[in-house]
Amino acid sequence: MARPLILVSNDDGITSRGIFNLVSVMKELGDVLVVAPDGPQSGMGHAITVGDTLRLNESFIFEGVRAYECSGTPADCIKMARHFVLKNDRQPDVVVSGINHGSNTSISVLYSGTMSAAIEGAIEGVPAIGFSLCDYSHKADFSHTGEVVKKIVQQVLEKGLPKGVALNVNIPAKRNEPLKGIRVCRQANAKWVEEFDQRFDPYGRSYFWMTGNFVNFDKAEDNDEWAIANNYVSVVPCQFDLTAHQAIAVLNEEWSILGK
Amino acid sequence: MARPLILVSNDDGITSRGIFNLVSVMKELGDVLVVAPDGPQSGMGHAITVGDTLRLNESFIFEGVRAYECSGTPADCIKMARHFVLKNDRQPDVVVSGINHGSNTSISVLYSGTMSAAIEGAIEGVPAIGFSLCDYSHKADFSHTGEVVKKIVQQVLEKGLPKGVALNVNIPAKRNEPLKGIRVCRQANAKWVEEFDQRFDPYGRSYFWMTGNFVNFDKAEDNDEWAIANNYVSVVPCQFDLTAHQAIAVLNEEWSILGK
Repeated sequence: MARPLILVSNDDGITSRGIFNLVSVMKELGDVLVVAPDGPQSGMGHAITVGDTLRLNESFIFEGVRAYECSGTPADCIKMARHFVLKNDRQPDVVVSGINHGSNTSISVLYSGTMSAAIEGAIEGVPAIGFSLCDYSHKADFSHTGEVVKKIVQQVLEKGLPKGVALNVNIPAKRNEPLKGIRVCRQANAKWVEEFDQRFDPYGRSYFWMTGNFVNFDKAEDNDEWAIANNYVSVVPCQFDLTAHQAIAVLNEEWSILGK
Repeated sequence: MARPLILVSNDDGITSRGIFNLVSVMKELGDVLVVAPDGPQSGMGHAITVGDTLRLNESFIFEGVRAYECSGTPADCIKMARHFVLKNDRQPDVVVSGINHGSNTSISVLYSGTMSAAIEGAIEGVPAIGFSLCDYSHKADFSHTGEVVKKIVQQVLEKGLPKGVALNVNIPAKRNEPLKGIRVCRQANAKWVEEFDQRFDPYGRSYFWMTGNFVNFDKAEDNDEWAIANNYVSVVPCQFDLTAHQAIAVLNEEWSILGK
């Protein structure tokens, strides 16, 4: 089999340590193309650039790897890779995004730029995986991530993924004991409770920093929060059909304003 | 029953015609609080502002309505309304977002700032609805939207919504014939195929405008694209649990790298 083509992106920006770690592992598995944001795009969710222009410039920071930095969001990066950089060429065999500096478990998948790149890959019909390390520190230890990332990408290259599915992979922060293993999970039922730290600028006008606490309502053991807390790698298959299918019958039954 | 508290936001910005139309209808139904972006936030998906500051200023553009303009995204607006403006006060009975200038059917729900405000409402446990008019023109005719919007909000205030569900409501552009009715739908299987219009700035450097064509793969009649094409209002119940639950068993069955 020919070496697979692996498209790499992220949301921390093309100079982040996480993407360097990811690229170095992907080079062992196939031909790598990087299209990543030219600066931080954390928390960008599934944003795309409409009503404004985009820049795309070649980057030479990865040795022996074709790479581009893009002024847009992670979703823009995948769109530009697919429909401009590779337009009439061979398409990627897999899209990988990350490794994110910080957790993207539970509800954070919605806000995650890392996962939006992966989900955009799935929309394009390409198996796709977002990787996050549950350690926000700038000096995060990535030494235990390489083996896990490699195993999962190899498995996806070998078996494919169900149609319309992208994987949200979270890796626990490095501990003194080895990782316990890899578990397929559902998204935990948890949320952020925000606080707004109000301050005043030198002109006396107020501004805010959004902070918050993560609250986990989920006591079960089949979710990603449990896996991470127990030193397992969590793999959540994610979809981009947001339809709450079970609610269709409820509304059809209860509502009196529907036209048939 | 006391008049309900209705929280209004959007993604086209607080001065757009769509939110004026929505506020004027909501004033008939309850007490209105507006927290909306201070400028256009289209295509922002579920982005939130992290690593940067937020501004929030009182606005007096809606007569007799308490209103704030926020420098952040639609999701930020709902978070600030919930956790700062209303912190210890009565919480909203319903969140409404829009009326968006342009369609948010099918896959566009992912990119939609309008819907991120609604989904953020659902995350907060409040029944929530995003409204979009399938007409991008600045001079779009909203005259047929008021009655539909009022009916749907009344229905939601009366019956509530299933837990974790927000509604994505799209209203066809005004035609010569009246609307045929309201239908509960699923998200159509369709996508955007992007094109990148490359141009050169006065310094000889290239930049891009993202454009694209919408491609509908879905031939069934139970989806939102069919409803809009046939002059029905579409109501898609949406969820924020992205787990592809049916894929969990597939991965558990097929993968050889899982730790138990």
